[in-house]
Amino acid sequence: MKSRTDALRRDALRERYHRVRAATLRLAEPLTPEDCVAQSMAEASRIHWQVAHTTLFFDTFALQPAGCPPYHPQFGFLFNSYYEAVGARVARDRRGLMTRPGLAEIERYRRHVDAEIERLFVDEPASLPRDLLMLGTHHEEQHQELMLTDLKHLFAQNPLRPVYRERASPAGPGGIGGRDPGALRFTPFSEGVRAIGHAGAGFAFDNEGPRHKVFVADFELAERPVTNAEYLEFMADGGYARPEPWLSDGWTRVQAQGWQAPLYWELRDGRWWSFTLSGMRPIEPYEPVCHVSFYEADAYARWAGARLPTEAEWEVAAEPVPPEGQFCDEAHLHPRPTPPGTGLRALFGDVWEWTASPYTPYPGFRPAAGAVGEYNGKFMANQMVLRGGSCVSPPGHLRASYRNFFPPEARWQFSGIRLAR
Amino acid sequence: MKSRTDALRRDALRERYHRVRAATLRLAEPLTPEDCVAQSMAEASRIHWQVAHTTLFFDTFALQPAGCPPYHPQFGFLFNSYYEAVGARVARDRRGLMTRPGLAEIERYRRHVDAEIERLFVDEPASLPRDLLMLGTHHEEQHQELMLTDLKHLFAQNPLRPVYRERASPAGPGGIGGRDPGALRFTPFSEGVRAIGHAGAGFAFDNEGPRHKVFVADFELAERPVTNAEYLEFMADGGYARPEPWLSDGWTRVQAQGWQAPLYWELRDGRWWSFTLSGMRPIEPYEPVCHVSFYEADAYARWAGARLPTEAEWEVAAEPVPPEGQFCDEAHLHPRPTPPGTGLRALFGDVWEWTASPYTPYPGFRPAAGAVGEYNGKFMANQMVLRGGSCVSPPGHLRASYRNFFPPEARWQFSGIRLAR
Amino acid sequence: MKSRTDALRRDALRERYHRVRAATLRLAEPLTPEDCVAQSMAEASRIHWQVAHTTLFFDTFALQPAGCPPYHPQFGFLFNSYYEAVGARVARDRRGLMTRPGLAEIERYRRHVDAEIERLFVDEPASLPRDLLMLGTHHEEQHQELMLTDLKHLFAQNPLRPVYRERASPAGPGGIGGRDPGALRFTPFSEGVRAIGHAGAGFAFDNEGPRHKVFVADFELAERPVTNAEYLEFMADGGYARPEPWLSDGWTRVQAQGWQAPLYWELRDGRWWSFTLSGMRPIEPYEPVCHVSFYEADAYARWAGARLPTEAEWEVAAEPVPPEGQFCDEAHLHPRPTPPGTGLRALFGDVWEWTASPYTPYPGFRPAAGAVGEYNGKFMANQMVLRGGSCVSPPGHLRASYRNFFPPEARWQFSGIRLAR
Amino acid sequence: MKSRTDALRRDALRERYHRVRAATLRLAEPLTPEDCVAQSMAEASRIHWQVAHTTLFFDTFALQPAGCPPYHPQFGFLFNSYYEAVGARVARDRRGLMTRPGLAEIERYRRHVDAEIERLFVDEPASLPRDLLMLGTHHEEQHQELMLTDLKHLFAQNPLRPVYRERASPAGPGGIGGRDPGALRFTPFSEGVRAIGHAGAGFAFDNEGPRHKVFVADFELAERPVTNAEYLEFMADGGYARPEPWLSDGWTRVQAQGWQAPLYWELRDGRWWSFTLSGMRPIEPYEPVCHVSFYEADAYARWAGARLPTEAEWEVAAEPVPPEGQFCDEAHLHPRPTPPGTGLRALFGDVWEWTASPYTPYPGFRPAAGAVGEYNGKFMANQMVLRGGSCVSPPGHLRASYRNFFPPEARWQFSGIRLAR
Repeated sequence: MKSRTDALRRDALRERYHRVRAATLRLAEPLTPEDCVAQSMAEASRIHWQVAHTTLFFDTFALQPAGCPPYHPQFGFLFNSYYEAVGARVARDRRGLMTRPGLAEIERYRRHVDAEIERLFVDEPASLPRDLLMLGTHHEEQHQELMLTDLKHLFAQNPLRPVYRERASPAGPGGIGGRDPGALRFTPFSEGVRAIGHAGAGFAFDNEGPRHKVFVADFELAERPVTNAEYLEFMADGGYARPEPWLSDGWTRVQAQGWQAPLYWELRDGRWWSFTLSGMRPIEPYEPVCHVSFYEADAYARWAGARLPTEAEWEVAAEPVPPEGQFCDEAHLHPRPTPPGTGLRALFGDVWEWTASPYTPYPGFRPAAGAVGEYNGKFMANQMVLRGGSCVSPPGHLRASYRNFFPPEARWQFSGIRLAR
Repeated sequence: MKSRTDALRRDALRERYHRVRAATLRLAEPLTPEDCVAQSMAEASRIHWQVAHTTLFFDTFALQPAGCPPYHPQFGFLFNSYYEAVGARVARDRRGLMTRPGLAEIERYRRHVDAEIERLFVDEPASLPRDLLMLGTHHEEQHQELMLTDLKHLFAQNPLRPVYRERASPAGPGGIGGRDPGALRFTPFSEGVRAIGHAGAGFAFDNEGPRHKVFVADFELAERPVTNAEYLEFMADGGYARPEPWLSDGWTRVQAQGWQAPLYWELRDGRWWSFTLSGMRPIEPYEPVCHVSFYEADAYARWAGARLPTEAEWEVAAEPVPPEGQFCDEAHLHPRPTPPGTGLRALFGDVWEWTASPYTPYPGFRPAAGAVGEYNGKFMANQMVLRGGSCVSPPGHLRASYRNFFPPEARWQFSGIRLAR
Repeated sequence: MKSRTDALRRDALRERYHRVRAATLRLAEPLTPEDCVAQSMAEASRIHWQVAHTTLFFDTFALQPAGCPPYHPQFGFLFNSYYEAVGARVARDRRGLMTRPGLAEIERYRRHVDAEIERLFVDEPASLPRDLLMLGTHHEEQHQELMLTDLKHLFAQNPLRPVYRERASPAGPGGIGGRDPGALRFTPFSEGVRAIGHAGAGFAFDNEGPRHKVFVADFELAERPVTNAEYLEFMADGGYARPEPWLSDGWTRVQAQGWQAPLYWELRDGRWWSFTLSGMRPIEPYEPVCHVSFYEADAYARWAGARLPTEAEWEVAAEPVPPEGQFCDEAHLHPRPTPPGTGLRALFGDVWEWTASPYTPYPGFRPAAGAVGEYNGKFMANQMVLRGGSCVSPPGHLRASYRNFFPPEARWQFSGIRLAR
Repeated sequence: MKSRTDALRRDALRERYHRVRAATLRLAEPLTPEDCVAQSMAEASRIHWQVAHTTLFFDTFALQPAGCPPYHPQFGFLFNSYYEAVGARVARDRRGLMTRPGLAEIERYRRHVDAEIERLFVDEPASLPRDLLMLGTHHEEQHQELMLTDLKHLFAQNPLRPVYRERASPAGPGGIGGRDPGALRFTPFSEGVRAIGHAGAGFAFDNEGPRHKVFVADFELAERPVTNAEYLEFMADGGYARPEPWLSDGWTRVQAQGWQAPLYWELRDGRWWSFTLSGMRPIEPYEPVCHVSFYEADAYARWAGARLPTEAEWEVAAEPVPPEGQFCDEAHLHPRPTPPGTGLRALFGDVWEWTASPYTPYPGFRPAAGAVGEYNGKFMANQMVLRGGSCVSPPGHLRASYRNFFPPEARWQFSGIRLAR
């Protein structure tokens, strides 16, 4: 019985491995070789690099410990990211100059690694590093989301405003623009000692645990994300022109970088448009506002007489909710209006929701041993936690305990706002 | 009865006002006019400015609302700091160029404001803005500490290594170097829902409240701060040479700025010295390590198999302890070795203790209305909380609930390390 | 007769146009699309851009005035360079992000423009803007050289050190390493009023004229460029370690950027190698030193007890010499040892020779009217003149009066040293 | 006879030494200690430093070679400037932090050095390093001018706009505003081989020689500098708004730094004012325009259909003219309107006149041996020559052959425009 269960699990992992690996290449299909090599800012990565880096993960942490020689002596250097323990790396802002190896050679590299992994599944099932393979596929799913956000940032620099994927669904009533989700309502939660953090059998990143107790006071959580129409009221009320609602660091950013609206918004003849992965589109009032920084989310909340939820509040509210929503498999690649209704809606998918919580270790947190332990714990300073996933997250990737994190000024992720009070 | 109590309180405030104001000028006495105008980095301030800025506080928030005209039409602009609501200000890194008004005129300004405040006490006791006067004196005490830390940073730039105040007490057994405080022991605390935050009648800054419940798991707190001798072991073990113990942002700093030891340390003929307000001195092994950033404190703790305490843990442990220790009235102006003994020692004074807690609002935090509300709440991003005060904090200024905060890379405060686990 | 001569001239221009245009594409043949889009520094350009920009020249200055509509409404913006009069342009350091249009579309653009130009030749010979077409082909030849120097800089960033073209000729006696050119001798010239600057029927850039009189004192010019062996003596004598031979700005660069050798040199196991368009090669002692800045050339000359020639001296010496030498048609793409012999040798080709002359207008200089007048005159500040062309200059492109110019710190051109005294 | 002449020369040098030294201190008299320590930009120096640095010159180059021990072991480090050969120095942009030694100690240092020099005059006349003493006094006169220009820049940063010296003379007819100097006329010069450069018995800096022949073509030189009224026409014609008249580097500066007028000009209620050493004053139309960069001078000249003179042209025209004009002894400290008249006027004093000549060595230039040889020759890159002196140059300091030099973007000197064509 045990071996039967085990074989099923191995088959599931094998299927998952190949499915995730194929999805990465599918995302790159609409791109030219030139699109794949350019890097638009230090924080972003080029597609080439992501396609190779996700492969290097399996090469370094699964194949090489199993005795396979490195595919290329310098790929570790070229495609390493933050794993200080593994060696030197190309400075992040110079990655865009690595025009060789090109996509063709990187795809050969992928095929080689995939074949070697497959060989492990077939020939050496007992010695399969299953946890690492599982971690590697989740790591790769994270990069799938980054491929889309980094590419969007790259295309936005180009005055031709290239289209990654034409928009499939029609606009209009019942279509893209959606319906008015109605006035914002809040769901109440009562105070008490609660447990948060991952517990259980499924996969989770190390930063989601250990599960631990927190005291949560009475709070209310908004039933849906803030819409563009609501955010436009903030803008119309001088949101970007007055220091009052802003944290000091946020106001410094507003002034230094001339922020006047969310990232990718452009004023054309008195009307706001925004750049999407389907090209330029007029702002739809009922869509969730997107591409705002923590500073903007926090300022909006203060202006609205509310606040952002802590990550504990968010997780307490989300734990009973199935992690379903609009993810990247829907190919819309832009947040959709939350349908009218009652109760907490759109917690998962559409837009990442900034929380009021800086990203810190949970009590008792221990990173995994070795270089993979650098995965999350190294970044626990100067970052804020986001929850819930977005319209460019892979389906099945999210959980209530999932902790994403970005610096408070970051705007190029699909990040939005859910209020608390 | 009520009016009697009230008069006593007013007299106490009046005495406090004049005492604090006099202390500021006393700190500036050993300085030349040139010392008072120079500004050594964007984060520091010149003495001139601090002497004037603390006066502007009373001018703006106490006298002008009481009908006094501003002393000078441009002093608000010259000596404003972060009060965005009050108007424009001189860019922080250009303040050192404001050679006029000089110290003589600024002292006239102080005398004018002090006389007007005294007039309010005498002539209009009923309309005294007591809360603002109290806030102003505590604000001024904070600047007294900054005057000393900023001055130390300025003097450290000068190859002549000027002396602010000669060291009074002799070195040697029983003297400055102190005795070996013995091996580090920890005091245990048991888990439960606790209350932290200021509550009660005395003064507190707005960021210390409201008092609220937190869940604290079992923890142990080190009985004393980490010593130079202990920190030298970390250095000898490659502490600054290997990325493993560091947060990613911290390691970036180490490399970019060439950190090899705490700030102000210099290697001379194979021995470490450090610059103090009494000039260059050899490192004393039993003194608490000082002038480390959060990144260094965190790396040291990880290397030592421990961690930094959260601010809740620190406050739970410190609440029963009287806020006594070495403050700036002792004129030693450098941390002293913790005496041998048992139990929690040196929680207050000597060195500020970095906590693991980012600086965020307490649940239900509401800043004061108007410009004084910008005092603390505006800075609740990208900063870490420190607790306990230092050897350059004014006596009587500290409380268990007191929350100081600086960016994680800041090293020019008298900041040290207390471990938890 | 006149019309016959005229037709011959037109045919020559037509042949030249198509020959130059074809050469540009031939240079790009060994490159991948990724190589063509990356830009390695603000001063360099990507290949894409150069291929399109040279085409835009004909589009803007030849076709559009002849009534052709612009090929694409935004190509002017995307591929403009310094022609302020023509409109806005993409910031130079963001050009590498313009992944669209890709090379395929740019080649379509080239074919379109070439066809339109050909149509002008055939259908409207009378209205041919011959001077502009001639200027455009010389402009394009300049960009051919820049394509190679910019590409070399890009490849040098890649730890894989890609090869642009394998080295054809074998090393050894009579081969690449060459023979010892012998001790440096100087050719004397006597003082007097001389004329320099272009005069005559052939093409020249506007900055080469007007021809004018200068007084030149007695001088001697070295018969050949300085070799690597000679430059290594300078290095061995502490050339990069002592401030004495350097101009102040030069010494600042040496220290700020850590210069220890010419650009592209690397020390491997105690021996100097350099990166070439054929990959890494050991330094050949008899080859002319290359990829030095003006500061290095000037410091070397001072160290050697000599100086750099003025551009007037250089031109007086070079005017009688035919402009022949090693240019890019030889496909060696690296300077070759000057053969032993007597008299001035290797004035043209191999390496550009830094002169002591800042780039300023000749007396009576008038730039051409309109945007093409921005071609050269706009840059007459903070640049030094170089003379003679290099091993990556197109054949037939150079003249004795030809004035190249770069900032004194530039090192990525094939620039070397000829002494005077 | 010979010894008699010699004694007279020695007395003259002695008188000159003490006169120049006293003048430096007189310039510092109106200043507070705070004014003396602040440094407003990397290119400027603080007064403290200049007062000490000019003393260090005599200490290092006259007294120490004569056997005197250094006054203070670290003053060489603190007050060295560009003499790389003499040792390390405080980074230029951190000099403002050297609050110790203060002015009192620096004045003690001056008295010590002056007494030692006097002792040499009295006791060891034979061993007097006369050339160095003469060089030192001229060096100190240059710093006297810099003290005023650097101080003006410092005061201009202060919103209180401090006054260095009240304006003595009244405005109005016959007063400060002056009379209309009339339309601009030009004086013609005919072509030929001319000699320029210093020759003869008097003092000159090394960069003024050797005297040498140049060929100068026919040219005309404007009889007076360009006025504010004329410059305002350039501004009104979009001078700062259109790229056409500008060199590329100049236009980059205009845009990056938002230049809209000369330095120190401010628009108040539609009228231009400028900051002077006597405080804010409305722009006087007939005064020479001042505080323009080379880029602005060059752009103005191009706009006006003229050009700047070369330094050879300027010197050929100025050689017969006595070096008289408004210098700093007149205490007006601002350029005065050129009086109406005919012929070349105001060549000396009032405003430095930008030439079209980059600062390069004259043919045969050899810097003095040793560290004093670093005085001028080190800076022969990226600078433009100015001629004629200004209203803040010391009287008697100028000559027709005198070559001043600043980077083309420098605006804080009293620099103006004389046209040529």
